[in-house]
Amino acid sequence: MAKIRLADISTLPPKKTDKNKIIAATEKLIVQLDELQNLLYAQSKYAILIVIQGMDAAGKDGAIRHVFGKLNPQGVQVTSFKEPTALELSHDFLWRIHQHTPARGMIHIFNRSHYEDVLVTRVHKLINNKLAFKRMDAINDFERLLVEHNHTHILKFYLHISHKEQLKRLDERIKDPQKQWKYNEKDFEESKLWPEYMEVYEDCLNNCNEVPWIITPSDAHWYKEYIIAKNLYELLSGLKMQYPGLKK
Amino acid sequence: MAKIRLADISTLPPKKTDKNKIIAATEKLIVQLDELQNLLYAQSKYAILIVIQGMDAAGKDGAIRHVFGKLNPQGVQVTSFKEPTALELSHDFLWRIHQHTPARGMIHIFNRSHYEDVLVTRVHKLINNKLAFKRMDAINDFERLLVEHNHTHILKFYLHISHKEQLKRLDERIKDPQKQWKYNEKDFEESKLWPEYMEVYEDCLNNCNEVPWIITPSDAHWYKEYIIAKNLYELLSGLKMQYPGLKK
Repeated sequence: MAKIRLADISTLPPKKTDKNKIIAATEKLIVQLDELQNLLYAQSKYAILIVIQGMDAAGKDGAIRHVFGKLNPQGVQVTSFKEPTALELSHDFLWRIHQHTPARGMIHIFNRSHYEDVLVTRVHKLINNKLAFKRMDAINDFERLLVEHNHTHILKFYLHISHKEQLKRLDERIKDPQKQWKYNEKDFEESKLWPEYMEVYEDCLNNCNEVPWIITPSDAHWYKEYIIAKNLYELLSGLKMQYPGLKK
Repeated sequence: MAKIRLADISTLPPKKTDKNKIIAATEKLIVQLDELQNLLYAQSKYAILIVIQGMDAAGKDGAIRHVFGKLNPQGVQVTSFKEPTALELSHDFLWRIHQHTPARGMIHIFNRSHYEDVLVTRVHKLINNKLAFKRMDAINDFERLLVEHNHTHILKFYLHISHKEQLKRLDERIKDPQKQWKYNEKDFEESKLWPEYMEVYEDCLNNCNEVPWIITPSDAHWYKEYIIAKNLYELLSGLKMQYPGLKK
């Protein structure tokens, strides 16, 4: 398979994409997702894990809010992985992740994930390359465990934005009172490490393919949300689920 | 490597083993283990996982009580895995196990373990052979994760008793008021499945070798306890641990 190079992939919606049509299509998908999620929960045969990764300001929070915000929260759980605690650091890096994997019937969304342990840690030289690649092997084993041993279907979205778009959004975080809470004084420092981040992301995209990545053009929120909703819809409708009927 | 056949391996201490000397040696080992466990906890560099498997009445509880009962409970944790709950069953079979793996500095003991998912389940035909071997692959991946990604050292003991010894002990459970609480009316039914259990145990011993098994002759409690204490002592003393001194 050809190696993925992020610089070669557009962060924009395909040309001539009709924004209004896409937004309407997303709305329709979300209504269908609501029904499919109910069926998933009722049947409890499959588990769904959605991994959302992307640079700062790539639109992870917004994607979760807009695509999943109208689903029944009883069947949907979001886990935002922050910097690991001392207890978490005293275990293997997948220990805290495994605890939050979905039971059958559930949709779990990871806002950041186990991939941070081969991203931010690498850029800041907290781990060397040898350990990073060992971790990527362990991630493949881990995702295979979930897929093969709990009927888990995993969708992994990399929210692909341009550096220019990131800087624009970080700037908005300073100016917009509704966004200031998201601003962190280290954001612009991290942003300078853009080329290093792209490199370690490419390693993930190329090596962690037990479950393939969906590289999601994300400079436009409406297009990103459509891609996420569409992929989840195609997955769920492809499962041919049925309500189980009365218990015997 | 030659295939392990349990019928070829003695369940008795080697001939001419001096029982009193062995008991005295075990006592001495336990005193040393106490010091080593303190060092392990202070340094918090390594994690120790001890897996104890064996047929009903193989002496798992007694081994834990006698070998680990004098260590500081702050650094030692025992998890007895019973039949999985509905919540546990709605996840992959390693989900509940992973939660109880040791933090660095800790000794965790599994009284039964993830191996039950390829033992009792196989004997009772709850899973087919194909899934059983897939699970054994997943177990190897899982143990490698602990070893490579959290400095975990794993000791796996199979407490090897004869069928005759088992029947004798089950009989005692009926007669001895202090042991009656352990008796389960299904015990003798399960015991009839001895050949089937030996076969699935042999598959574990031969296939789950990411970490090798220690086949522990267990018809004599005093000898079994010595083997466990000795192996743990050799592991811990081999780590060349040091007190970390004042924090910088």
